[in-house]
Amino acid sequence: MIFGRNPVIELIKSGRSINKIFFAEGNHDGSIKKIFSMAKNAGIVCEIVNRAKLDKICEGGRHQGVAAMAAAVQYSTVEEILNFAESKNESPFIILLDELEDPHNFGAILRTADAVGVHGVIIPKRRSVQLNSTVAKTSAGAVEYVKVAQVVNVAQTLKKFHEMNLKIVGSDMSAEKNFSEVDLSGGIVLIIGSEGKGMRRLTRENCDLLVKIPMVGKINSLNASVAGAVLMYEIFRQR
Amino acid sequence: MIFGRNPVIELIKSGRSINKIFFAEGNHDGSIKKIFSMAKNAGIVCEIVNRAKLDKICEGGRHQGVAAMAAAVQYSTVEEILNFAESKNESPFIILLDELEDPHNFGAILRTADAVGVHGVIIPKRRSVQLNSTVAKTSAGAVEYVKVAQVVNVAQTLKKFHEMNLKIVGSDMSAEKNFSEVDLSGGIVLIIGSEGKGMRRLTRENCDLLVKIPMVGKINSLNASVAGAVLMYEIFRQR
Repeated sequence: MIFGRNPVIELIKSGRSINKIFFAEGNHDGSIKKIFSMAKNAGIVCEIVNRAKLDKICEGGRHQGVAAMAAAVQYSTVEEILNFAESKNESPFIILLDELEDPHNFGAILRTADAVGVHGVIIPKRRSVQLNSTVAKTSAGAVEYVKVAQVVNVAQTLKKFHEMNLKIVGSDMSAEKNFSEVDLSGGIVLIIGSEGKGMRRLTRENCDLLVKIPMVGKINSLNASVAGAVLMYEIFRQR
Repeated sequence: MIFGRNPVIELIKSGRSINKIFFAEGNHDGSIKKIFSMAKNAGIVCEIVNRAKLDKICEGGRHQGVAAMAAAVQYSTVEEILNFAESKNESPFIILLDELEDPHNFGAILRTADAVGVHGVIIPKRRSVQLNSTVAKTSAGAVEYVKVAQVVNVAQTLKKFHEMNLKIVGSDMSAEKNFSEVDLSGGIVLIIGSEGKGMRRLTRENCDLLVKIPMVGKINSLNASVAGAVLMYEIFRQR
């Protein structure tokens, strides 16, 4: 289920297969009317249900009166991500999430990844947040546009990227150089670690470059999606 | 109520007045034991309650087995924020949240504000998220360190800052210059607009400088705390 007004609008726009859209009964204001007419134009089945049923369909999520039953999200492959970069004649810009846990962070990262032109996001198949409706909602629709691939073995994937001469960059409090002082141009794989523990040892060992996000306050870490965004924008600026 | 392990640890460290700390009964692992001994050393009353009661005290929030009843968060004043900057011999670095609504965004902004050395955050007294337990939890403890002031009239406050020669900067999709191409050094007030609507007209009119965060994707906006973080780090870099 994709719910919330903007996510449903983006879903319809994306052209992905939608089985049905549910609307809550009651007064329908402008944006609900807009979604209804978009759905009609696209030939999507619509159903009006009472609010309690919609709450249940969305498992208590904030649906804003509308929810869409989409075909399951298609994961991409690493090859598709690399081919996509090549088709745009750009050096690859890839994000790897190393055991990220919070779907809100995943969604926020996808939203920023869309904004800065990331070619794809890679997650481990196990011990990682996966694509779900909370991710879709938090991503504000970016989940429809940013390719996401699952890999079984992160370390092996990084070794392959290394052989392709992609620069593998991780962030670490103890790194010597600040992120804005290093060369982040060219093909790059940016690693974002888990909320509590950061990068795993094996992942860190596969990095070509560790960078520090400077902090002068009392709290010694940033939110994972914020740290990711600061680094993504610096890479974007340098590209 | 402040709940969650790290927020309670930061609360104790901050030295703020705490009426009582509640612990869930059951096995207590390392970090709970640490909190207990910190509380004992600080002479804070502790009480062990059953998990259902703790759930109720925290209104369903993720308490991780511990919650503290703190004296109400003290708001600062704009004068205190300015005096704080002066006492550090720094030109003011102030954030103004223009009708932000989401406590998670407010918390994440406070966390980043702490990291980059912001002197204080200003919010409108009405029609804005206020300091609450969700903000405290999301801020990872930064709420204890970053000064927050409420003002009745944002436009008047900005006029006063303008007279003090602080640079008032807002972000806008239609601005001509990218944020990384403009001079953001010196005394500055960074405005972060609301999640849905951005800055209000009157607020925008009081800006000295509008900057654009470039985006090349399909979604045309960033999460408010992400946009704020990207701008805060650019200001921090230039200072």
